Amino acid sequence: MPADILIATEAELRAALPLDLAAIDCVESAFAALAGDGVVMPPVLSMALPAVNGEVDVKTAYLPGFEGFAIKVSPGFFDNPGLGLPSLNGLMLLFSARTGVAQAVFLDNGYLTDLRTAAAGAVAARHLAPRDVRTAGVLGTGAQARLQMQAAHLVRPFERVLVWGRDPERAAACARDIAAATGATADVAEDIPTLMAQSQLVVTTTPSEQPLIRAEWLHPGVHITAMGSDQQGKTEVAPEALAAADLYVADRVSQCAVMGELRGARAAGLMTGDPPELGQIVTGQAAGRQSADAVTVCDLTGTGAQDTAIATRALAAMRQTRGGTTISA
Amino acid sequence: MPADILIATEAELRAALPLDLAAIDCVESAFAALAGDGVVMPPVLSMALPAVNGEVDVKTAYLPGFEGFAIKVSPGFFDNPGLGLPSLNGLMLLFSARTGVAQAVFLDNGYLTDLRTAAAGAVAARHLAPRDVRTAGVLGTGAQARLQMQAAHLVRPFERVLVWGRDPERAAACARDIAAATGATADVAEDIPTLMAQSQLVVTTTPSEQPLIRAEWLHPGVHITAMGSDQQGKTEVAPEALAAADLYVADRVSQCAVMGELRGARAAGLMTGDPPELGQIVTGQAAGRQSADAVTVCDLTGTGAQDTAIATRALAAMRQTRGGTTISA
Repeated sequence: MPADILIATEAELRAALPLDLAAIDCVESAFAALAGDGVVMPPVLSMALPAVNGEVDVKTAYLPGFEGFAIKVSPGFFDNPGLGLPSLNGLMLLFSARTGVAQAVFLDNGYLTDLRTAAAGAVAARHLAPRDVRTAGVLGTGAQARLQMQAAHLVRPFERVLVWGRDPERAAACARDIAAATGATADVAEDIPTLMAQSQLVVTTTPSEQPLIRAEWLHPGVHITAMGSDQQGKTEVAPEALAAADLYVADRVSQCAVMGELRGARAAGLMTGDPPELGQIVTGQAAGRQSADAVTVCDLTGTGAQDTAIATRALAAMRQTRGGTTISA
Repeated sequence: MPADILIATEAELRAALPLDLAAIDCVESAFAALAGDGVVMPPVLSMALPAVNGEVDVKTAYLPGFEGFAIKVSPGFFDNPGLGLPSLNGLMLLFSARTGVAQAVFLDNGYLTDLRTAAAGAVAARHLAPRDVRTAGVLGTGAQARLQMQAAHLVRPFERVLVWGRDPERAAACARDIAAATGATADVAEDIPTLMAQSQLVVTTTPSEQPLIRAEWLHPGVHITAMGSDQQGKTEVAPEALAAADLYVADRVSQCAVMGELRGARAAGLMTGDPPELGQIVTGQAAGRQSADAVTVCDLTGTGAQDTAIATRALAAMRQTRGGTTISA
């Protein structure tokens, strides 16, 4: 009894599923589900391949109320640039949550991950940033720097963006792209304290192994989303800054304690107790920003729940546009 | 920079990749690799979904010398028969072991697993069964009962098959199918002692939770391959029978100790020390059958290494037949 399985390429997915408010709402619903009962999100299957300087991660999550569950395979092979190939690849599979039958194969080369990661930043901004953001700052000059600002602009239509990166030319190119995508003015910030002082919303998108944001640069009414750290050894926000914030929010406490900013702050003895999760803020189970002057921090490590939400949406979008290739197997 | 990815269906894979000596040799090479250095085979990612009476397993293994590594997704949704669907589904992905780039998606509905499981039985028979097998016996009447006899017949061309199952009609149907596939005579055995007494090679393929084969039924020159048990709580061979054998061989000791026959025998205090693995017998690192009269047992739980081997072979076979659908993504 063959089933129809949709195969979609990166180009098809980019066309059918742009970074828009609907994508942000979709990822917000994943966080809401994470705050409820019945979520099953096993630990990541991680296979290190030192012989070929590579690693492979497999993530999945079952969310009640979603018709499908995603399984995401993310290979990273770090000798690839020498072969003219990107280090990171990957694809996502979607299965029916009722029958386990495969529904779709998204040959997205990581696009859906980029999308759901940027959308999570916008969910954090929507619920935690001050209502009035005139200037947004971004640390880092890669794809997520661009996408995070584009996503945040949809929920906080700021007039100006400041970009900081170690390489000024890359920072300038990033600023140009952000200006083109958002319509905001975008400039390169000379240093991080300058960017911090002028921004009401700051997103960190770097693979830094040393904290970039210090406690003394926090100011009333700033929100920081740290999304760069996704493994032990990475950190972007100093433990003292995390502790000094009025509110710290994790995407998933169990993950942030291992591979997010929370890890360092707990190791330094500066954070005790269980902080709220973003999903609890979304659903009103925990309080978000309490005043315009509060300092808030959101720690995003990336969850299988976001993959399940975006893959479910991708299938709906591809069906609507009648895109992709259907294979009867 | 789009890459070409091959998509193949179950029907295409069945046509390109039959159960033959080449498939057996392929799986034998996986066992040989398992006995060497550099294998990376992480624990299975297992997601239980009690809300929908389902479970999902993800297996993978990296084998030095193989051009690709497989990731296999095996959903089991046990309310499916009520919907007219099979309980078990699944697909296999193949990635380049050098770059991590996706090479193939095998929408095989479990066919490649059936194939590599039957082939592993033949590898066990080739290295452990007595040279002269006139009668082979099989416990169980499902797809693996048929495939195990078909595979074993390629390495031990027995004249007669005895089939035992709890349901005599299903056993008769199974015997007819085996006779048609192998050309051997095939009969239903009245009971297990009768089957044991007349067979030189016995394969157990059931999901039994109580031992089916007792120690007193062992006789000189019999080989047993137990492939039904693949999780805690299943068992087909009594601990005393395992202990009474002259040689017990595991496909992977670490797995058999958790979900194979070895588990019960160790729990009963009847097996100590580390038994040899099938790959060590294949490569000559450990001794196999020592005489025509020896009693041998092989415990197969199924390994990601077999998946990687069969998926690598599947890609080669599909390329040779120019079958499947190629998608540039």
